[in-house]
Amino acid sequence: MIDDATTTTCVRAAAVVWGPGEPLVIEEVEVAPPARMEVRVKVLFTSICHTDLSAWKGENELQRKFPRILGHEAAGVVESVGEGVDDLAAGDHVVPVFAGECGACAYCESGKTNLCKTYRVDPFKSTMVTDGGTRFTVVDRSSGERRPVYHFLNTSTFVEYTVIDAACAVKINPRAPLQKMCLLSCGLSTGLGAAWNAANVSKGTTVAIFGLGAIGLAVAEGARLRGASRIIGVDVNPGKFSKGKEMGITDFINSKASCKPVHEVIREMTDGGVDYSFECTGINDVLREAFVSTHDGWGLTVVLGIHATPRMLPLHPMELFDGRRVTGCVFGDFKAKSQLPQLVDKCLQGEVKINFDGFITHEMPFEDINKAFQLLEEGKSLRCLLHF
Amino acid sequence: MIDDATTTTCVRAAAVVWGPGEPLVIEEVEVAPPARMEVRVKVLFTSICHTDLSAWKGENELQRKFPRILGHEAAGVVESVGEGVDDLAAGDHVVPVFAGECGACAYCESGKTNLCKTYRVDPFKSTMVTDGGTRFTVVDRSSGERRPVYHFLNTSTFVEYTVIDAACAVKINPRAPLQKMCLLSCGLSTGLGAAWNAANVSKGTTVAIFGLGAIGLAVAEGARLRGASRIIGVDVNPGKFSKGKEMGITDFINSKASCKPVHEVIREMTDGGVDYSFECTGINDVLREAFVSTHDGWGLTVVLGIHATPRMLPLHPMELFDGRRVTGCVFGDFKAKSQLPQLVDKCLQGEVKINFDGFITHEMPFEDINKAFQLLEEGKSLRCLLHF
Repeated sequence: MIDDATTTTCVRAAAVVWGPGEPLVIEEVEVAPPARMEVRVKVLFTSICHTDLSAWKGENELQRKFPRILGHEAAGVVESVGEGVDDLAAGDHVVPVFAGECGACAYCESGKTNLCKTYRVDPFKSTMVTDGGTRFTVVDRSSGERRPVYHFLNTSTFVEYTVIDAACAVKINPRAPLQKMCLLSCGLSTGLGAAWNAANVSKGTTVAIFGLGAIGLAVAEGARLRGASRIIGVDVNPGKFSKGKEMGITDFINSKASCKPVHEVIREMTDGGVDYSFECTGINDVLREAFVSTHDGWGLTVVLGIHATPRMLPLHPMELFDGRRVTGCVFGDFKAKSQLPQLVDKCLQGEVKINFDGFITHEMPFEDINKAFQLLEEGKSLRCLLHF
Repeated sequence: MIDDATTTTCVRAAAVVWGPGEPLVIEEVEVAPPARMEVRVKVLFTSICHTDLSAWKGENELQRKFPRILGHEAAGVVESVGEGVDDLAAGDHVVPVFAGECGACAYCESGKTNLCKTYRVDPFKSTMVTDGGTRFTVVDRSSGERRPVYHFLNTSTFVEYTVIDAACAVKINPRAPLQKMCLLSCGLSTGLGAAWNAANVSKGTTVAIFGLGAIGLAVAEGARLRGASRIIGVDVNPGKFSKGKEMGITDFINSKASCKPVHEVIREMTDGGVDYSFECTGINDVLREAFVSTHDGWGLTVVLGIHATPRMLPLHPMELFDGRRVTGCVFGDFKAKSQLPQLVDKCLQGEVKINFDGFITHEMPFEDINKAFQLLEEGKSLRCLLHF
């Protein structure tokens, strides 16, 4: 599996974004060797998530750093390691993660959060921690000049070789099939973990999921595996229900076609409200529906959607006295390096039966990445796996 | 202790509010015997809380039901019990509570909430559950007509004899001094329970309390008893600090005099923020300061203040991804009838050493109730104990 690259700079193909919304261009980029506490990873599979889409469009102007290599869901093999890296070696199978874990800061040691002080997700970060530089350069065809290419979400996986912090590379069992493990890099872990860690869904409880994209369906998968008795899916697209059934969705509400507010429908269906609701749309009004769909006294709403709105939480302070709670959740509250390897082992042992295949709706060569972007944008794919 | 009243209607003195903000008038009211699942209680001590103040002023027009008997913090002795009451008998020492517990509904049985289906606090309720009527009547001097007098917060304690639901009467050890137990009826339980149950403050953790009235100081007392290492009090009145020290406040911030936002001061003092913050003012902007004063990753803000504003929570959905949480808390999350008697026993055994006396800043006869209202309104008293 190991490429012949050494620990010197090498030239590899990457899908580079030159400007907001412009088609990705496959370019030859120079990939520097890993610096201290970094690793260089040969990416074998990568897929596309909505966060890539919004960064590509430059929806948040603070994020507009171009040229840039996007991508944050992948799996591959360590090619070389930088100075000081002692938990990874060339040949290790790894999953890059945007939510890194240094293992030594007050956050990592607290046992109370998966937000690492240095390597937590930061949508505005575009360079490496070690020296504030980039590890990619490319020739700008218009000027002929060599320019640095910016990083993305601690990962940048739309490239044959990427350089990431060792804190963001999760070593997994080499027997695990990398094309499936790719999905644990973001979407599946986020949804499964929201159900398992953030909400701690238990057997016989009731769940409502707002937004049935890959994240919402991964929540359903997590709730199904925990034995939830009812998993209500809410979406404006009734076509999502058939796929949802595979992941455990038991009931579907088309929020566009409903003549009553969705929370009223859910309260009627569940004798007062669900135990847990999950907001996976990033829409403020949907967040409110999700909140009031839970049972008073103990309902918990987990927010997963990216809310680009300037609007504040659409909840009144006094509503907190009804005993409903709301919490955010990043990367499914998983501590990536401490916990994902065990999850992979449990999958290999058959102890946890995740329907990975159900999420991979398309596969194509890396070169077709623009087509894969289009499929996701049109809502036609859950995950399109790109092969290098 | 038992009065000579029988289970027939009796006439007793009450402090009646005839209109918003009008001085309370000591009137002879007729007190009906307890109906099914009700008890009649001879009130021996009562005190005044800010919720009485705002209801007296009629700040919320939906609450303007007059004539009315306010009061919800008290202690007394059961005089007679209605049909079906089997857990209380004449002579029992009781503390009336606005947060009742029927013990049999889905909420009470869930073990997840102290909000009882039928007897939870309802600021708009003004009559009895059993028949929708009142148990008090009074002669209107202007018309000479006999009028019903409305109830308040499941309790109505500004009267020699009150009638309450058995679900709202907590039987306590008769050895406990009733003048102190009166404070467990609302303020002290609310604050102590916020620290113990809602936040679960543990040894060595850090706490910030916004608003140092009786509730805020009860939170401090709860945090002190749990061994918090630092308890920061925030108030606009620096005079609150000396009293606060008695209850365990270690540091004081005068939010009016601070040239930096309070959350910045707190983050500097505590290496990134406190573990727990408590909002006891009912002011939306203070709620935000309390929220951002906690440490990211694990900070928890408990909202105790009554927010009369129409404004929504001053938090952005994306801020939830920083790992800070916010929760409301009613009656300190105590299940009143199940848990308060044990707390009283622990106090008697010396296992829990609550500084009850520190909260009783004034005592006077019941007839002086208007003076007691004035003291609280002027911020001069924590609790003024009224003796019958």
